[in-house]
Amino acid sequence: MFRQNYSSSLLEEAVDQLATLPGVGRRTALRLALHLMAEPRENVEQFAGSLVRLKRDIRYCPTCGMISDDGKCPVCSDPRRDGTIVCVVESLRDVLSIENTGQYNGLYHILGGIISPLDGIGPGDLRIRELTERLESGRIGEVVLALSTSMEGETTAYYLYKQIARFPVTVTAIARGVGFGDDLEYTDELTLGRSIKNRQIFKP
Amino acid sequence: MFRQNYSSSLLEEAVDQLATLPGVGRRTALRLALHLMAEPRENVEQFAGSLVRLKRDIRYCPTCGMISDDGKCPVCSDPRRDGTIVCVVESLRDVLSIENTGQYNGLYHILGGIISPLDGIGPGDLRIRELTERLESGRIGEVVLALSTSMEGETTAYYLYKQIARFPVTVTAIARGVGFGDDLEYTDELTLGRSIKNRQIFKP
Repeated sequence: MFRQNYSSSLLEEAVDQLATLPGVGRRTALRLALHLMAEPRENVEQFAGSLVRLKRDIRYCPTCGMISDDGKCPVCSDPRRDGTIVCVVESLRDVLSIENTGQYNGLYHILGGIISPLDGIGPGDLRIRELTERLESGRIGEVVLALSTSMEGETTAYYLYKQIARFPVTVTAIARGVGFGDDLEYTDELTLGRSIKNRQIFKP
Repeated sequence: MFRQNYSSSLLEEAVDQLATLPGVGRRTALRLALHLMAEPRENVEQFAGSLVRLKRDIRYCPTCGMISDDGKCPVCSDPRRDGTIVCVVESLRDVLSIENTGQYNGLYHILGGIISPLDGIGPGDLRIRELTERLESGRIGEVVLALSTSMEGETTAYYLYKQIARFPVTVTAIARGVGFGDDLEYTDELTLGRSIKNRQIFKP
């Protein structure tokens, strides 16, 4: 990136650290470091502090895995949510995406990952036992699988289905098909094929 | 980005802070925040600490404006550098870029900005007096202007030229022309025009 002999070890270290962020190469990391160097010291301290506090003080709901500031789960503890439906997702990001749609009013269950033998992640590394424990309470009537359609996602969904089968719950999966606004022409064959097979009554 | 009511103020704050970085929108900021949340606490503390240390401990050379860890300028104090040439640049980033080429062995003078009336930056905000003070020493024989070709860059170069004119120094500017590997077809007219006008003896 730049000649070590005329650089600063402080700058090097900051660039190294910034370059660990996903999607940030050393060139971008340098740009970010120079940006921070030009900011007032209080701003940089507030910036850094917010990241340390996020990691240090964030709490996770022992039931669903959702984050909260005070340990009280904002979803599980909300009486307006339908406690009979649980949507199983891979990560917190998926919860935020689904919440963003405003179309779901049930609870969540964050697995904390997805079965991926290549990455050394097996069922034991995910919050699957926590899910079956929730089902044992008997309060839940439907489990919605909202996992990705990757090989790993399908494997995880199949594994979960086998684990859940012994409980008297309906297992559903989010609908797959051609996205709104997508051209049929540019939709991949698998998606288009499934969306034709799973066609529904037209309600204008 | 996501519904405030089910989010965490800690996450919100971290996303707000990350989104202040250049080129980072709220969507990317959320991705970065979630990445950091998944890292071990020590890593996040080291990450944040490196940024605070960069801002707090970095020193600037009072002569050229270059950074250093200990206050001793790595360029000005290097006896192998040619102390009779000073290259004037806008920012530290330009120094790093020029150093990266390995083609320059003189000293630098970082202006710390560029004359830009729209941004409220006048000559008094730049390290121009420091430059003329350096010239008064009489040791410098050439000033290389390495400023951008923008309106602001040209204005700054002209202003500097007027300030420097009273000293017995040669004022040069970095060569402009068609970049190596660039197609003439895609080179803008101004650049191509100047590169023809400023043609040089061909030395194969």
